Amino acid sequence: MRATTIHGTRDIRVEEIPDPTIEQPTDAIIRVTAACICGSDLWPYRGENPITPGNTIGHECIGVVEAVGSAVRDVAVGEHVVVPFCHCDNTCAHCRAGAQSACENLSMTVSGQSEYARVGQADGSLVSTHGLPDDDLLASVLTLTDVMPTGWHAAVSAGVAPGSTAVVVGDGAVGLCGVIAAKQLGAERIIVMSRHAARQDLARAFGATHVVEQRGAEGNAAVLEITDGVGVDAALECVGTDQSMSTAIAVTRPGGGVGFVGVPHGVKLPVRQLFAKNIGVRGGIAPVRRYLPELLDLVLERAIDPGRVFDLELPLEESPEGYRAMDERRAVKVMLRP
Amino acid sequence: MRATTIHGTRDIRVEEIPDPTIEQPTDAIIRVTAACICGSDLWPYRGENPITPGNTIGHECIGVVEAVGSAVRDVAVGEHVVVPFCHCDNTCAHCRAGAQSACENLSMTVSGQSEYARVGQADGSLVSTHGLPDDDLLASVLTLTDVMPTGWHAAVSAGVAPGSTAVVVGDGAVGLCGVIAAKQLGAERIIVMSRHAARQDLARAFGATHVVEQRGAEGNAAVLEITDGVGVDAALECVGTDQSMSTAIAVTRPGGGVGFVGVPHGVKLPVRQLFAKNIGVRGGIAPVRRYLPELLDLVLERAIDPGRVFDLELPLEESPEGYRAMDERRAVKVMLRP
Repeated sequence: MRATTIHGTRDIRVEEIPDPTIEQPTDAIIRVTAACICGSDLWPYRGENPITPGNTIGHECIGVVEAVGSAVRDVAVGEHVVVPFCHCDNTCAHCRAGAQSACENLSMTVSGQSEYARVGQADGSLVSTHGLPDDDLLASVLTLTDVMPTGWHAAVSAGVAPGSTAVVVGDGAVGLCGVIAAKQLGAERIIVMSRHAARQDLARAFGATHVVEQRGAEGNAAVLEITDGVGVDAALECVGTDQSMSTAIAVTRPGGGVGFVGVPHGVKLPVRQLFAKNIGVRGGIAPVRRYLPELLDLVLERAIDPGRVFDLELPLEESPEGYRAMDERRAVKVMLRP
Repeated sequence: MRATTIHGTRDIRVEEIPDPTIEQPTDAIIRVTAACICGSDLWPYRGENPITPGNTIGHECIGVVEAVGSAVRDVAVGEHVVVPFCHCDNTCAHCRAGAQSACENLSMTVSGQSEYARVGQADGSLVSTHGLPDDDLLASVLTLTDVMPTGWHAAVSAGVAPGSTAVVVGDGAVGLCGVIAAKQLGAERIIVMSRHAARQDLARAFGATHVVEQRGAEGNAAVLEITDGVGVDAALECVGTDQSMSTAIAVTRPGGGVGFVGVPHGVKLPVRQLFAKNIGVRGGIAPVRRYLPELLDLVLERAIDPGRVFDLELPLEESPEGYRAMDERRAVKVMLRP
């Protein structure tokens, strides 16, 4: 098959490699209809995470079930499905408690930006879209593999509640999906921290009521001013750097919550500050499967439109250009079509 | 008045000093009927927190209102009251959100182990006991100034829910009150980590279902074994050291919560571990006033009996011996009677 592979820093290629095969009786193979590039793919792309040269890359895809293992019961060949990037049996103690990203049988999509992908625990993981989605829904369905549930997880983890005030730190695709989530969960005021006009516009379209362009102490002061000096009830930290976490904590009111979903890189949690302000910190890898049915309904009902985070669509063969566009912030999020 | 003062490491004295006076129109002066020594008083006693030699010490007391400032409306001279160690107006934005320990007009009891104490924001802070409590209730009422609400805050912050499994890390008075709180909030299994027979017995009397004597990796393994390898839903960290926090996090299930109320001394929060396990961390200085009415009702109805944490009662003049007894762990908690 044709597959996106990584060979070194800023060295992405599309190559011919062997098709994935059923390895466990609980596996399925998916023929990819649409895939995309994740902000977290940029960490290895930029040389900030270790890689194995020649490995496939990409963990977000949707597609048609091509084959299933002998133990798969609930998923049929030919079904069009959403593939949560973290695969889970959805039956173990952790899954039953809503922590599907810590499933006892956890695995991940590893060749999402390719023609085919293997999925572990197919019965637990895959969610049918009941046929190929309408063309105008495809992009939004694709976001359900990771970015939309991750933004949702930030909002849930931060404790967004009806009538609350939320801030979203980070205007990448996850942050923008965080705006959608905060809105859906009933936040009355949604502040997005962004200095990019196009992203600000999209955030407003998704429900943001305020935009703060400043960063650092000035940005904190601007958020506090909007909240009459009180701070926000909930902060969605959607970047993963120490600066974004510091901002999230600084603008949260005493007793409020920070939900963090950016993979932490150099983040230090200031325990004395959290203690003094009684600020809760909660987050991590999104339990995608937990949120999938609810979010799929919202997408199919056209209640939310997270697919608008895609501002560039390329054929799979042009994966390397997709990475360049996201790395250079020319694109928010790139869809790849095999 | 006679007052407990601190002059240096392990140098506690009882001396004659001027009575406190009304300084703000919102102040009240309390004639102390009972006071006690807090685990956190041991930090300065042991030289681990800076002090000003000659200052009074002690932030837990109950007593009779002796005088009120001109702006005090709801508290009358002669009333017997509980004095939350952190004083709050109970009307500002933070108080209204349940974060009374971050009140915009926050102050603290500073001469609790004395004959008299000044209380700021008397209307917001003080809660009447409707007369002097019965003798057998006095100790439990006294715990409502700090230790019982702090244990309660650990349980609330950890997210203890009906049917859940909780672990309490720390068998001091706060940890023991945490057991009471976990029980009241509906935990089905309550594991206390303790190696002291008398404290284990009290924990069991308060509702602990399991005792783990081991520490470190062995202690973690023991808790995991009790929970069939899953981990606890909620961990109450009631010490404030890096070891106790590490234990709390290690034994919490993915998606679970750690509530921490021990003043952090050298605690480092392992952000990557929290992220990987989706463990929430929340806590801080207890918003005592928030919990006071509910907890006072429970005490007066004899539904809870936190006063049993006192295992030594001394006259105020013997404060220094009280500190020694707690420092040497000869006493869990010491009551002082002026």
